[in-house]
Amino acid sequence: MIRDDIPTPALLLDLDRFDRNLRAAAAHVSAAGKQFRPHAKTHKCPEIARRQVAAGATGVVCAKLAEAEVMAASGIPGLLISTEVVGDEKVGRLMRLLDHDPGVLVVVDHPDNVRDLAHAARAAGHVLGVLVDVDVGGRRTGTGPGEPALALARAVAAAPSLRFRGLQGYAGQCAHIVGWAARREAAVKAMTPLIETRRLLEARGIPVEIVSGGSTGTYDIDSDLAGLTELQCGSYCVMDLDYLRIGGRTGDRLTDFEMALTVLATVVSVPAPDLAIVDAGLKAFATDRPFGPEPVERPSVVYEFAGDEHGRLLSRDPRGSVRLGERVEFFPPHCDPTMNLYDRVYAMRGARVEAVWDIAARGKSQ
Amino acid sequence: MIRDDIPTPALLLDLDRFDRNLRAAAAHVSAAGKQFRPHAKTHKCPEIARRQVAAGATGVVCAKLAEAEVMAASGIPGLLISTEVVGDEKVGRLMRLLDHDPGVLVVVDHPDNVRDLAHAARAAGHVLGVLVDVDVGGRRTGTGPGEPALALARAVAAAPSLRFRGLQGYAGQCAHIVGWAARREAAVKAMTPLIETRRLLEARGIPVEIVSGGSTGTYDIDSDLAGLTELQCGSYCVMDLDYLRIGGRTGDRLTDFEMALTVLATVVSVPAPDLAIVDAGLKAFATDRPFGPEPVERPSVVYEFAGDEHGRLLSRDPRGSVRLGERVEFFPPHCDPTMNLYDRVYAMRGARVEAVWDIAARGKSQ
Repeated sequence: MIRDDIPTPALLLDLDRFDRNLRAAAAHVSAAGKQFRPHAKTHKCPEIARRQVAAGATGVVCAKLAEAEVMAASGIPGLLISTEVVGDEKVGRLMRLLDHDPGVLVVVDHPDNVRDLAHAARAAGHVLGVLVDVDVGGRRTGTGPGEPALALARAVAAAPSLRFRGLQGYAGQCAHIVGWAARREAAVKAMTPLIETRRLLEARGIPVEIVSGGSTGTYDIDSDLAGLTELQCGSYCVMDLDYLRIGGRTGDRLTDFEMALTVLATVVSVPAPDLAIVDAGLKAFATDRPFGPEPVERPSVVYEFAGDEHGRLLSRDPRGSVRLGERVEFFPPHCDPTMNLYDRVYAMRGARVEAVWDIAARGKSQ
Repeated sequence: MIRDDIPTPALLLDLDRFDRNLRAAAAHVSAAGKQFRPHAKTHKCPEIARRQVAAGATGVVCAKLAEAEVMAASGIPGLLISTEVVGDEKVGRLMRLLDHDPGVLVVVDHPDNVRDLAHAARAAGHVLGVLVDVDVGGRRTGTGPGEPALALARAVAAAPSLRFRGLQGYAGQCAHIVGWAARREAAVKAMTPLIETRRLLEARGIPVEIVSGGSTGTYDIDSDLAGLTELQCGSYCVMDLDYLRIGGRTGDRLTDFEMALTVLATVVSVPAPDLAIVDAGLKAFATDRPFGPEPVERPSVVYEFAGDEHGRLLSRDPRGSVRLGERVEFFPPHCDPTMNLYDRVYAMRGARVEAVWDIAARGKSQ
């Protein structure tokens, strides 16, 4: 199968670029003396997770229990569920997941949840590994650093059916700050209370084996943080326009990782010389960023959303206009919710389809 | 199964409201003497299509070939594919679909596509029903009204393997105009060239059996257009905040159809008295509108996106704050791309799950 045979819109992964991204990140994290547990919410694809582990990762982070269920069913080791598992339905499913994979780690940020997990694990005969989720300024999940985290760690450590393993802190608010120096300043400031919480716990006699955090935007900042034991970067493996635009240590583009992910579309209508319509719209790309997809290697063509199932290509140069039936590739604005729209990704070597991988955890946000 | 057992985030359909929406639209369209072919791109769910047909619809419109393949496999009759089927891969699949359902209708807006379809249909021994797609100002697909449409209709009529059936014109640019009078003025102006094109073709001796168009936003405007034979409204069956806010014939809310679709989420973290985190974020709701989801019956709580898998609930009144583990329902901003995120919809009678329906054409944009 070649590129021209792929039904569009379709998600394409450039394997040469992807392979280099896996190697570059693994080498960087390893040289920093850290563990690497990439976030699988980016790709939701067991085959990509398998390759991340083969490249040296400890395992993968899963945003939700359902994502972890899929990864566990595919034999991916070292799973950490980065969102609190709350409520009878989910806690029940977590216990069944532990039957299959007793090594799954969860996070907690509330004593009621610690109590519920301890009760369920005891009833099921499990010892559940737990990290305390610390809010590092993202105003999302997590308990306060310092004393509140210490109290929660003690509650975990006191429960025989739970095993306190360490801390998690995700500074998502820093990941997309444009400009490396500004990003570094914000990230170090955000992560310092997490590192200090580690010291506090250790000073109180609670061993902290894991301190997990970080993002693609701050990967070479997080790796300098003494006290952080592992990085959770996700997008690095495929990249997107959003991360490209935050800039690198030098330059206004983050080029440490390559743009490996594209959406392939077909021109289905050419209503005017400067206008073409492709078969990829709101259901083909994430729409959560203030900018749209960007045509690959077509500087004179601009994409504009044109409804659920269509996009407009506006050509600023008649020589760059596209023909009916022509195929055009686009870099997506934001990789995670874009991948979540597709059931499969076409793994490409040049114009040849080397494999088709199931995005088996697509839609698994439960 | 009851509401509290549903794994969240989940898509819920209130069956009482949905049933009333089906009946109200069918009665309105029938009273206007039109046919009704609702757009299945809204729901991508064969069971909903089946109920639309049972309520009197001629069939359903499909945005793409892959959507039609799913609907045909479920035995839904009267399929019209509203996007041009372009390229060898897709034309080949269309011929296989015709083997299964010879009544499928397609649209064309380019003579090259007419030639390709005629050639393929002749080779496959089919006579393919074709509408000419007319641009009514949406700057999307469609040939110009008047002479260009006439020329294309003649090309279709001249091909023995094609059968000219009529015209399609979708004035998507009018569907969301706020205020009924302004919307009516714009829609009538946009659709008039389509109606005039019908007259032109008939004056030239080409019978026009079908003139298909319309949207939920203009349903009671389209139904007054002499010359339009069928309506394509989609969102009416489930509704969303976007259509609610365009206003009705009277009042600043479009209440002719009821808000039947919600997303159910769980509070997974309560970091502060005025802040709670739910397990539904960018992957649980469409994000293409300038406003976010709205909590159902909780006027003091505002939702804010907080990443791929989370949302923030900001409580303006401490008495309205939510508890850890509590379940909250939200109206989605835009129904079509929201339904496209889910594999199933829970069909509810009150708090009881009456059925779970597959959104079998989810992701089928090819």
